[in-house]
Amino acid sequence: MFANEIIIDGLQYCKWDREYFTFLKNSKLSAVHITLVYHENARETLSRFAQWDRFFENNADLIMPVMSADDIILAKEKGLVGIFFGAQNCSPIEDEIGLIPVMRKLGLLIMQLTYNNQSLLATGCYEKEDSGITRFGRQAIAEMNRVGMIIDMSHSSQRSTLEAIDISSRPICISHANPTFAHNALRNKSDEVIKALAKRGGLIGFSLYPFHLPNGSNCTLQDFCKMIAKSADMIGIDHLAIGSDLCKNQDISILEWMRNGRWSKEMDYGEGSASNANWPKDLTWFCDEKGMENIHEGLLQHGFNEKEVSKILGKNWLNFLDKGLKPQI
Amino acid sequence: MFANEIIIDGLQYCKWDREYFTFLKNSKLSAVHITLVYHENARETLSRFAQWDRFFENNADLIMPVMSADDIILAKEKGLVGIFFGAQNCSPIEDEIGLIPVMRKLGLLIMQLTYNNQSLLATGCYEKEDSGITRFGRQAIAEMNRVGMIIDMSHSSQRSTLEAIDISSRPICISHANPTFAHNALRNKSDEVIKALAKRGGLIGFSLYPFHLPNGSNCTLQDFCKMIAKSADMIGIDHLAIGSDLCKNQDISILEWMRNGRWSKEMDYGEGSASNANWPKDLTWFCDEKGMENIHEGLLQHGFNEKEVSKILGKNWLNFLDKGLKPQI
Repeated sequence: MFANEIIIDGLQYCKWDREYFTFLKNSKLSAVHITLVYHENARETLSRFAQWDRFFENNADLIMPVMSADDIILAKEKGLVGIFFGAQNCSPIEDEIGLIPVMRKLGLLIMQLTYNNQSLLATGCYEKEDSGITRFGRQAIAEMNRVGMIIDMSHSSQRSTLEAIDISSRPICISHANPTFAHNALRNKSDEVIKALAKRGGLIGFSLYPFHLPNGSNCTLQDFCKMIAKSADMIGIDHLAIGSDLCKNQDISILEWMRNGRWSKEMDYGEGSASNANWPKDLTWFCDEKGMENIHEGLLQHGFNEKEVSKILGKNWLNFLDKGLKPQI
Repeated sequence: MFANEIIIDGLQYCKWDREYFTFLKNSKLSAVHITLVYHENARETLSRFAQWDRFFENNADLIMPVMSADDIILAKEKGLVGIFFGAQNCSPIEDEIGLIPVMRKLGLLIMQLTYNNQSLLATGCYEKEDSGITRFGRQAIAEMNRVGMIIDMSHSSQRSTLEAIDISSRPICISHANPTFAHNALRNKSDEVIKALAKRGGLIGFSLYPFHLPNGSNCTLQDFCKMIAKSADMIGIDHLAIGSDLCKNQDISILEWMRNGRWSKEMDYGEGSASNANWPKDLTWFCDEKGMENIHEGLLQHGFNEKEVSKILGKNWLNFLDKGLKPQI
């Protein structure tokens, strides 16, 4: 059954190479939302796109670029893994609203308004003060709505997230985070946010990153499924998905780049600490090519039916992308 | 008759605004090859694309973007002027071959390998020594061939142009220059180049820029048509087109930017001189909305038949673009 479904992982940032693309294909993923950049500026983002053009050229038997929901169906038919791009920060557009349509044309389908810190558009989840969506932020949201670039508030703080949900004329996503009711962390989302998100047609992708989970790396598959079930009770099935936040085969320098970018002279440990600075230990049930299939099985055993599970593991992302990516022009 | 034809101007760099887009529409042009940048680097080129996105958004009743020959036919049907982009230098790709597919995706359909000076790819027409296509140049040509970005050698020197014609697996263009037999200037092209170009299926667009013409601003329409007729005798009709090099409503600072970019501390006067530093005086028969229609009439009077004239004024560009823009991937 699993092999016939559209399976979508709503966020990964792994060490991209042929070996990993083979891993993705063997994992039976139809499509993956790939983090293209964390803090890269416009020029640097072009080099990331160039790098992916090479990946597509040299691995056409494994992966293909995705610019629409239809492309994901095509990827599934062809037995390839569809790749779609997002930025975890608004750095690719710098201070120029005109770069939103430019980056969208190149394939930046999703963009976070902020990554942990205050950005030009909104406030990140680790700031003490949350001043909400900025002047530029309001215009950027309208422009993203116009061209069909999806707003992602995974790393944003509460007020900014609620305002983005409200200001945006189209549903937004939290591609990778968990409810605070399951694990209370600054990166996770309150019931208020999750309810507001769903009310406006948005989507939340449950994260498999141990720092976002109850009991960290010891979180059980049952606990994970329980979190999803409780969320379904709160907002229904149609707004739930997976955004694993999988960062496979990356060394610590990548983690330091995510956390520190170019903004910090001191070492910022993000969700870790000085004594726990490295990548967290993998979950035993989400560490190899069977990861998504394990979740599929776990959700069935938890009491979800086949149709519900197929929505959570892919169909909800597919529908959300279909609506969110079509330009309003 | 003129109003029903596909009319294409193979190069312009005017002061772009609503007034000028209206001028283009009234000139009954189906499409124009617009110079997007002269010396702008990758980041600056993004801002030019962003500027044009605004132009398209705000002038959708006059212009539309063109990514293929079919789009030109669509523009004609809709009564809009199709706009397609070229760079007069290879500055948008900087030193990175991966920026060729990136820029192509954004709509850079044509790129000169060099503008007057030595570039990273080839030698410009004002250099004393012409060392031909460089190591990077050979790879760039292959990549342009692969993604369907057209090579333009208008401002290149003889050896580099001959080598580009030879190395390229697809026909190339000289979008805007004239034969040296009509006017002997470094910017114009020898019989050898024009014959080699045509032999490989290339295209030359005759320039209306007075510095490229016999008798400069006093060149008559008859002289212009005579030059085309002599070229047709030499290489046939199918390789001839128009690339007016029209630079309307631009002040001298633009001319200085074209000529000097950021490379010269001394003032370089290009085809002009210290005592003749400004824009040349307009041709009386190519100065208003009737310009292309005047050429149409002039060619008919010179003895070309309707079919031949329609090729020269647009169909040859259309066919050339149709073949040149389709990716080989």
